[in-house]
Amino acid sequence: MKTIDLNCDMGESFGAWKMGADAEIMRFISSTNIACGFHAGDPATIRHTVALALEHGVAVGAHPSLPDLQGFGRRAMKITPQEMYDLVLYQAGAVEAFARAAGAKLHHVKCHGALYNMSTADEALSDAMARAVKDLGGDVILYALSNSRMLEVARKVGVRVAGEAFADRGYSDDGTLAPRGKPGGMIEQEDKAVAQAIGMIEGGYVTSLAGKRVPVAPDTLCLHGDQPDAVAFARALRKAFAGRGIAVGAP
Amino acid sequence: MKTIDLNCDMGESFGAWKMGADAEIMRFISSTNIACGFHAGDPATIRHTVALALEHGVAVGAHPSLPDLQGFGRRAMKITPQEMYDLVLYQAGAVEAFARAAGAKLHHVKCHGALYNMSTADEALSDAMARAVKDLGGDVILYALSNSRMLEVARKVGVRVAGEAFADRGYSDDGTLAPRGKPGGMIEQEDKAVAQAIGMIEGGYVTSLAGKRVPVAPDTLCLHGDQPDAVAFARALRKAFAGRGIAVGAP
Amino acid sequence: MKTIDLNCDMGESFGAWKMGADAEIMRFISSTNIACGFHAGDPATIRHTVALALEHGVAVGAHPSLPDLQGFGRRAMKITPQEMYDLVLYQAGAVEAFARAAGAKLHHVKCHGALYNMSTADEALSDAMARAVKDLGGDVILYALSNSRMLEVARKVGVRVAGEAFADRGYSDDGTLAPRGKPGGMIEQEDKAVAQAIGMIEGGYVTSLAGKRVPVAPDTLCLHGDQPDAVAFARALRKAFAGRGIAVGAP
Amino acid sequence: MKTIDLNCDMGESFGAWKMGADAEIMRFISSTNIACGFHAGDPATIRHTVALALEHGVAVGAHPSLPDLQGFGRRAMKITPQEMYDLVLYQAGAVEAFARAAGAKLHHVKCHGALYNMSTADEALSDAMARAVKDLGGDVILYALSNSRMLEVARKVGVRVAGEAFADRGYSDDGTLAPRGKPGGMIEQEDKAVAQAIGMIEGGYVTSLAGKRVPVAPDTLCLHGDQPDAVAFARALRKAFAGRGIAVGAP
Repeated sequence: MKTIDLNCDMGESFGAWKMGADAEIMRFISSTNIACGFHAGDPATIRHTVALALEHGVAVGAHPSLPDLQGFGRRAMKITPQEMYDLVLYQAGAVEAFARAAGAKLHHVKCHGALYNMSTADEALSDAMARAVKDLGGDVILYALSNSRMLEVARKVGVRVAGEAFADRGYSDDGTLAPRGKPGGMIEQEDKAVAQAIGMIEGGYVTSLAGKRVPVAPDTLCLHGDQPDAVAFARALRKAFAGRGIAVGAP
Repeated sequence: MKTIDLNCDMGESFGAWKMGADAEIMRFISSTNIACGFHAGDPATIRHTVALALEHGVAVGAHPSLPDLQGFGRRAMKITPQEMYDLVLYQAGAVEAFARAAGAKLHHVKCHGALYNMSTADEALSDAMARAVKDLGGDVILYALSNSRMLEVARKVGVRVAGEAFADRGYSDDGTLAPRGKPGGMIEQEDKAVAQAIGMIEGGYVTSLAGKRVPVAPDTLCLHGDQPDAVAFARALRKAFAGRGIAVGAP
Repeated sequence: MKTIDLNCDMGESFGAWKMGADAEIMRFISSTNIACGFHAGDPATIRHTVALALEHGVAVGAHPSLPDLQGFGRRAMKITPQEMYDLVLYQAGAVEAFARAAGAKLHHVKCHGALYNMSTADEALSDAMARAVKDLGGDVILYALSNSRMLEVARKVGVRVAGEAFADRGYSDDGTLAPRGKPGGMIEQEDKAVAQAIGMIEGGYVTSLAGKRVPVAPDTLCLHGDQPDAVAFARALRKAFAGRGIAVGAP
Repeated sequence: MKTIDLNCDMGESFGAWKMGADAEIMRFISSTNIACGFHAGDPATIRHTVALALEHGVAVGAHPSLPDLQGFGRRAMKITPQEMYDLVLYQAGAVEAFARAAGAKLHHVKCHGALYNMSTADEALSDAMARAVKDLGGDVILYALSNSRMLEVARKVGVRVAGEAFADRGYSDDGTLAPRGKPGGMIEQEDKAVAQAIGMIEGGYVTSLAGKRVPVAPDTLCLHGDQPDAVAFARALRKAFAGRGIAVGAP
């Protein structure tokens, strides 16, 4: 029996501003990446989101970001590997304290937005991030883009990793994500995205935009909680998984 | 043989701005309260300060604050007990991660500036702060004003506490601090401050500004690292302690 | 023919987070108070909101706040009169630049949340705020609570003022607002709120919660744009005004 | 008689942290670029710096930055031209309000750190910045790197510009600045830097690191106020200017 993790970014409200449908989506997932206050989230939101996750038996992860509330952590910023290390350690430590206070442990770290892309593209940043996760102790898992160099770098550092793939994103021939703006970059039909997920989980491959069969064997699938139809898609995915005997669980 | 802790606020640089003489003063103290990024400090400064403390065998504490970089955490702000809890847990968790990454553990928490005063004056805030420290786990100690209600509140919550006193501040008849602005509120003569410290440690009392003998038996003395003569005073204090067989060590 | 101003707080989105129904409500009002980035708003949102106001012929005001994004400027903070002056001048200057760039001028300043309450309750803060508005030049108007001491203070400073009242808030016998939490503190029935508005505009009085007839003769009425029924209430108010020949226009 | 402007970045203290020797250097310069609160500075510091400038008859400019207090605005960040426009307008508007309140007008705008470099290197960002300065109105001057494309772009937008050069930086053969890290990138001998300044002002040229005579005819020279010998260098420069009949004055 195959098992896959479903993860989703959460806790992205901030102060008086609400974002996401965390309470509805939490029912469908097995791990959650909680905003740490640098692109979204605040101490109260972290606490609420940890409690919601534990209520649903969902593994608690930290979702560190560049320090850019106004830009939601989406604007790339020139930082050094040392700054990457410090950013990840600070933010993951803060979320971990809330996990511990609630009787749980920090399960994983997944970088957000521009920090995710920057650490995927730059080996020195990958290394710094992996070392930060390792230094957290407690065998915390690093979620990183499937097929990326970061997985190897992290393994070399001695960190457990989980490769992440996307049901609703188009892939290039080399197994990396096609840009969102490209035709087919975002998969909007529910059945097609479900089929892509099944293909990756059962067959270990994805069909690229150019029609090539590319190996992608993820440990975790990312649900985009900020899409208007996120709940419906999550439900469809779980139904398809149930029908084929695919279990959902955190790594 | 008597033992007293000497603590000092540190890590109060921020980005390009430097503050304090941490490297010089670290040699004289047994525990340090590290700014967590809300009134001062940043992830890199926390890392440097933790490393400096470990080099000198100094116990690492977190020094959480109201979120007010521009006001250096000195402007009182109307917050709820729940906000107090969240602020302390978030900031202490962040510093703890750096302690753990450096192979140490978080030893204590001491609130900064307005947060210190607010939590001393308001029982609901005391209780919230004590619960945050307790929920950090690991038997972290709460540093709180000697003779304040907060000590009892914290004990009721089940937190280890250390009562803090000041060698260079004048005291009122009820054992609380006289306002800084009042004549005698700040003790500027080194020998007088040293004598006050010795009196509190050996005799368990202080002479109030009105001349009354008031019981003050601290576990820890606070050194003000931002005073121009901080290093000289620290040296004088250690010399006086050495001469009288008073040991210096973290609780 | 009577004329009354209808003002509404706007531009309270921040980065990726949306708040308020500015586009719908702008059609009903004659002046808008634009968040300046300290409790809400950001440079892009200020620009959009100024453009929207000018499209509808609505007077552009600045809505400065305490520096507290996470608390939405609602948490009182101990600041000096000089800090009040600096906060207001900085934020109003920033919004004014956007008004000027769009070919308009800054019409008024109204403080937000805790800053509004603090400046109403403390004469030194009132004075500082009024001086900041005066020093902006250009005959900018200060919106302040009707019947408050701030109106006199501002007149003494030499600033034009507009007294603000609330259609949907209960009043005490002394003409000040009853606390929101008190029974009757918030008026939720549309017809009752409309009637209170008409009474203040035509008769110059309001009936207090205790049943007393209290003089309140506002220059401007505040619409709460964050209420779920804000648009419906705005429409009802305008309809009632039209039926009685009350004009709506900025002071 | 030749006239040159001497400008210096100032107001870079922040809250409790001090930076720079503004009071000493203000005596030697003719225009100052005041930090606006995004990389350094705060409303109180802006007010103090404006007052200090007016006391010395120094022209008041705004020194806008990327929003990065911790990184002192030195970390490049991927922003859109629209974000550039909004950042400059917001910050310059805030400083302008303090200038007006003090009875002066805003004289110029010069971008800080990474924003300066980004706007020099990217034509769309240059254009956005120039439009922001134009939309401020009041004929505010844009300070931009001498020989850069930004000067032309700004002229096309219809903004007055002043070309800036550096006495203490080495130049490349194309008239742009050599990297600081390169041998000769920073000129540390006072007499050599003074000679370079004189050469540029009187002869309209600089000798590149490779020994080539390159045309550089600045309107304004930048003094680095954060160098330890800034005051001594400013004095030497003024003395050399006096000896050769070169006047110092804002454009």
